[in-house]
Amino acid sequence: MHLSISAGVAFFVAFLLQAAGRDPLPSWNDTKPKQEIIAFVERVTKEGSPDFVPVPERIATFDNDGTLWAEQPIYFQALFIFDRIKALVPEHPEWKEREPFASLLKGDIKAVAAGGEKTAMELLMATHANMTSEEFEVVVRDWLATARHPKTGRPYTEMVYQPMLELLGYLRANGFKTFIVSGGGVEFMRAWAEKVYGIPPEQIIGSSIKTKFEIREGKPVLMRLPEINFIDDKEGKPVGIQQHIGHRPIAAFGNSDGDQQMLEWTMAGSGARFALLVHHTDAEREWAYDRKSHVGRLDKALDEAQTKGWTVVSMKDDWRTIFPK
Amino acid sequence: MHLSISAGVAFFVAFLLQAAGRDPLPSWNDTKPKQEIIAFVERVTKEGSPDFVPVPERIATFDNDGTLWAEQPIYFQALFIFDRIKALVPEHPEWKEREPFASLLKGDIKAVAAGGEKTAMELLMATHANMTSEEFEVVVRDWLATARHPKTGRPYTEMVYQPMLELLGYLRANGFKTFIVSGGGVEFMRAWAEKVYGIPPEQIIGSSIKTKFEIREGKPVLMRLPEINFIDDKEGKPVGIQQHIGHRPIAAFGNSDGDQQMLEWTMAGSGARFALLVHHTDAEREWAYDRKSHVGRLDKALDEAQTKGWTVVSMKDDWRTIFPK
Repeated sequence: MHLSISAGVAFFVAFLLQAAGRDPLPSWNDTKPKQEIIAFVERVTKEGSPDFVPVPERIATFDNDGTLWAEQPIYFQALFIFDRIKALVPEHPEWKEREPFASLLKGDIKAVAAGGEKTAMELLMATHANMTSEEFEVVVRDWLATARHPKTGRPYTEMVYQPMLELLGYLRANGFKTFIVSGGGVEFMRAWAEKVYGIPPEQIIGSSIKTKFEIREGKPVLMRLPEINFIDDKEGKPVGIQQHIGHRPIAAFGNSDGDQQMLEWTMAGSGARFALLVHHTDAEREWAYDRKSHVGRLDKALDEAQTKGWTVVSMKDDWRTIFPK
Repeated sequence: MHLSISAGVAFFVAFLLQAAGRDPLPSWNDTKPKQEIIAFVERVTKEGSPDFVPVPERIATFDNDGTLWAEQPIYFQALFIFDRIKALVPEHPEWKEREPFASLLKGDIKAVAAGGEKTAMELLMATHANMTSEEFEVVVRDWLATARHPKTGRPYTEMVYQPMLELLGYLRANGFKTFIVSGGGVEFMRAWAEKVYGIPPEQIIGSSIKTKFEIREGKPVLMRLPEINFIDDKEGKPVGIQQHIGHRPIAAFGNSDGDQQMLEWTMAGSGARFALLVHHTDAEREWAYDRKSHVGRLDKALDEAQTKGWTVVSMKDDWRTIFPK
């Protein structure tokens, strides 16, 4: 069967399927990860069970890049940056001569990558700062409406994982509040995540730049400043979770070493807990990468998952479908 | 009638009253503010009306000190700090000789206040930092269980405004999501606000100190560092709202110049909007203060409210009851 990627429809369908006793996770093979997810949800939702968790404590956090949508050949937000630089050249003709812009415009990504963090910051700020929060939202939405993935030719919002859409719906149908906790930019995600995942802006936590309240032409605006505010990755994820949610998740979902601390923080609470890693093992239907990848490296967290018995999804073996049809 | 201050009960009662066509705001006199609140809620919730607002956009933000609970003779969090310093003397005997602790322990609040921001920071960090987030929560809860207000002798959690509890319930019964946006410490409020106001931790925005993820005795913890992270006051309130909620409120409630920018930001959006200031005019039942008060000064925001037609509540004239019975 085909579930629509429209979040509202997908989750309503999930709810109905569950109510009718039908499989709420049809894109998952009937292997260990699916069994473990369902066993966990049944334990924490069964009233009177020693593992019962009241609804307000049913907090589930999801990484985004590589967990809810794809992240190859590079994080999609980086592809947004590249496209924006190209689109802004008419306003910035000097970029044709100035590094790192000149290399990027020539398509020499290797030279850009060699510039390291300083270069990355320069490109980030040139495309994310010095506009209002509302202007930025429009830029992201316009980009998503037309941009296509370089390999698949699909819109980025269709490169989300169908099994994870079903999982979000299944958890919500069981009283969970679902959050995104991503290293990606919080305002970048908020521009589309509600429509795609059914997760509202206030349940999205991410990296951010500073903003400043000011009155511009008599109207209050929030100006985006070229200065990092918070990096929501690795040790930053538990910090972001506590700042934003204020209680500890009982379930967390990731795919890389950037998610390791979020999973540790989640599992260290008392009572029933669940941690899951998506392992990218399917070179044919998606990409296969782990310990040596520059993007989405999964190395230490995979070791910890094996030691501690966290659930590991092999995309190749455990997912019937990867992308929505 | 007496509504319990137990949030769950109060809101359920509010819902039932409304469903039965009964007055959802019984502690409000039938004056202009109450009429304006009800008119606004009816406009934005009536399907097909040009002012209709879909449920996910029904965001209402509330200041805490002076808006939801009292703030005299000084913010209650400052009274918490004073009590904590006294309680910690056995662990810090050197404080008896060291300023600003020595003056505080002698009850010389004037000398403490004369120390300004540097002194305030020192006292804040001595009582709020260098422990885990979980340890701090226990400290706040234990304090609230026994501490009493110096004038009324009541627990602080009973010095909340009954009309505002009813308003929170009325808005929620009409599909609003209610948030606190306070200059107070976010973790200080989260320790009790869900029980008292029915507002869960993830809907509380406040000032914060930095935290750090670390492994202590094999267990991950979030250590509270003696360093300011964010001040959620004045220009900081719209910044905090955008960082945390990611969309603009359609209604905002405050009582001081610290709330002015939050109300401006709320009112500058398109469509139906509502801004309300609580004016402390009742020296008999509460306190009377505004333009010259050190705590909760209401001066510029009151001028702006008068110019722009924001709703202003006179506690003396518009509230039948102030504190829960």
